Amino acid sequence: MTTFTKGLQGIVAAQTVKSLVMGEVGRLLYAGYSIRDLAEYATFEEVVYLLWHGELPTPDQLADLKARLAVERKLPEVVVATLHALPTDALPMDALRTGVSALGAAYPKAAQVDEAGAIAVLARVPGIIAAFHRVRQGLEPLAPRADLDYAAHYLYLLSGHEPTPAQARALDVYLLLTADHGLNASTFTARVVASTLSDLVSAVVAGIGALKGPLHGGAPSEVVKMLDEIGDAANAEAWLKGALARGERIMGFGHRVYRAEDPRADVLRDLAQTVATPARYALARTTEEYAIPLLEAHRPGRKLYTNVEFYSALVMEGVGLPADLFTPTFAASRAAGWTAHALEQVADNRIIRPDADYIGPAERPYPVVELV
Amino acid sequence: MTTFTKGLQGIVAAQTVKSLVMGEVGRLLYAGYSIRDLAEYATFEEVVYLLWHGELPTPDQLADLKARLAVERKLPEVVVATLHALPTDALPMDALRTGVSALGAAYPKAAQVDEAGAIAVLARVPGIIAAFHRVRQGLEPLAPRADLDYAAHYLYLLSGHEPTPAQARALDVYLLLTADHGLNASTFTARVVASTLSDLVSAVVAGIGALKGPLHGGAPSEVVKMLDEIGDAANAEAWLKGALARGERIMGFGHRVYRAEDPRADVLRDLAQTVATPARYALARTTEEYAIPLLEAHRPGRKLYTNVEFYSALVMEGVGLPADLFTPTFAASRAAGWTAHALEQVADNRIIRPDADYIGPAERPYPVVELV
Repeated sequence: MTTFTKGLQGIVAAQTVKSLVMGEVGRLLYAGYSIRDLAEYATFEEVVYLLWHGELPTPDQLADLKARLAVERKLPEVVVATLHALPTDALPMDALRTGVSALGAAYPKAAQVDEAGAIAVLARVPGIIAAFHRVRQGLEPLAPRADLDYAAHYLYLLSGHEPTPAQARALDVYLLLTADHGLNASTFTARVVASTLSDLVSAVVAGIGALKGPLHGGAPSEVVKMLDEIGDAANAEAWLKGALARGERIMGFGHRVYRAEDPRADVLRDLAQTVATPARYALARTTEEYAIPLLEAHRPGRKLYTNVEFYSALVMEGVGLPADLFTPTFAASRAAGWTAHALEQVADNRIIRPDADYIGPAERPYPVVELV
Repeated sequence: MTTFTKGLQGIVAAQTVKSLVMGEVGRLLYAGYSIRDLAEYATFEEVVYLLWHGELPTPDQLADLKARLAVERKLPEVVVATLHALPTDALPMDALRTGVSALGAAYPKAAQVDEAGAIAVLARVPGIIAAFHRVRQGLEPLAPRADLDYAAHYLYLLSGHEPTPAQARALDVYLLLTADHGLNASTFTARVVASTLSDLVSAVVAGIGALKGPLHGGAPSEVVKMLDEIGDAANAEAWLKGALARGERIMGFGHRVYRAEDPRADVLRDLAQTVATPARYALARTTEEYAIPLLEAHRPGRKLYTNVEFYSALVMEGVGLPADLFTPTFAASRAAGWTAHALEQVADNRIIRPDADYIGPAERPYPVVELV
């Protein structure tokens, strides 16, 4: 038995070919390709293929994957009925978790731990988010279309309007940047579930539950709240100093793994400029420029750089997503990684069952009451 | 970075005061009390209190917990509507996962990572299983009662009849025996989800998904199938020899952790005799008596003893549960452990985020097509 390492930091829990996170130097590769190259040249669907198969698709393979994703977009009636049954003020992550779970109950293909299952689940995540978003507004969910790619189709399902090319591309790049990231907590959760030889939906539902946590994917909307509070670039320095003086956390900075700038943040910064209003972008940029030296002065040596959430929030806001759909949208990308890792886990499986360090009471007798 | 240990075997992933599994000697303690004493003297509700608080309840504390569980039994309309929306042939574990998820979406108290949340979830797990079981038979779910304890109430909700005292006690003891068991895969899953500071329902839903796997909680109904195939005690030896010769797995023997008899199996054996028909018990007993030496001869030194599933199946069958509710019933007990561990995790938290050993392709350039 090993000694206890809190949070399993530095403990290797799986072998993977999916992604390599180089925390010290701020680099991220998917199956050998740098996230920067992929953001420049690839699309989300290409990255999905890469994560599932380990190689980039040929044009035919990519077309085939897109076609297979497109035919799996329609939600079973059961899923729509389930989303209708939920309160309109339910948290979208709770609705997504419930909708995906209902998909597993109603559509056995989605439960298969294979590529067909992965397609059946991933193709419907945007539709489940969008259906709940429409139902909570008193609108009917829209019928899926086959002529739009994943990112553009998601924005269409939410609004009924096709996004601009800049919006579609910005969301597409956001999705591919966040599709996988080593053994983050939700991906690890999905692997633990898959290791019991449970079904794919159970693994994805567990991942959604983990992603919901504010220490993982649950906080990007906090960035928007912070920028709204700062209000104007001229207030950024004073606001940040005040927040630090009050011991508050500055949202969008620092990461468990990266001790250099998160490579995704750098790409997202440029991307944000293509969809955010100039004033909003300037506010974010100024906030970032003040925050980093202030954080360094406040916590010397902690290396709190801009993380993936900071400009993700700006990109998602810029493409028209409401703040409470930011984390569900993160799930719409990370579902690619969850399914890739679940398939990888079962291909060479052993149930993930660690030891515990028992620190409770020593053995003691049950206090039997003797009748006299 | 450590070297990779498949399945995290022997790696300490948490400190706990909840339970101590002594695999080599075949003993199990909850907070210092042996499972054998608890099975003899305690009830499921006492064990729930023990797992949540670390001490046995006083009579007043026990009465208070029972009262609080009883008032939380009613299912929100949303949950009932969700279960009605599912196909009647859905797997009960999928229905339970979806129903608990809907509970979290509809009833914020159940999402709280505290004792009130744990009560709100645990109290409703039997009701969700029973409601789906009735709905799938075309029956309406029954209104909960406050005058029955957890085990008896569950059996009442399923059938509309109060169980016999022997049935109620047999299920009660089954539930307390299986309420917690170190960092098994579902409990570990629940802790990983809780470590993101997500909500309690997300942790429990993830646990349900992991428990569904046949390498974890998903196989007890296989024992019934095996006993049905053997049919008569006189066939047991020949049947087992044939199965081993064909390389088939004998269900109900062997455990990842125990290298001695599972201490729960010993209690469940006696318990099975109180509710199974004499013929069924004799069949199981004879099967067990032949299986252990045959397994030892087949796999010398593997120490494949009777595990918790073997007589669990007989107990659950004996109290009238259909085979496809065995794993959901396991969830109705293990939810006590999942919630106890989720609360323990957040009380001294660090996000559980292990490392991966990247074994994929080295860095490579994206194959940009140059236009000439």
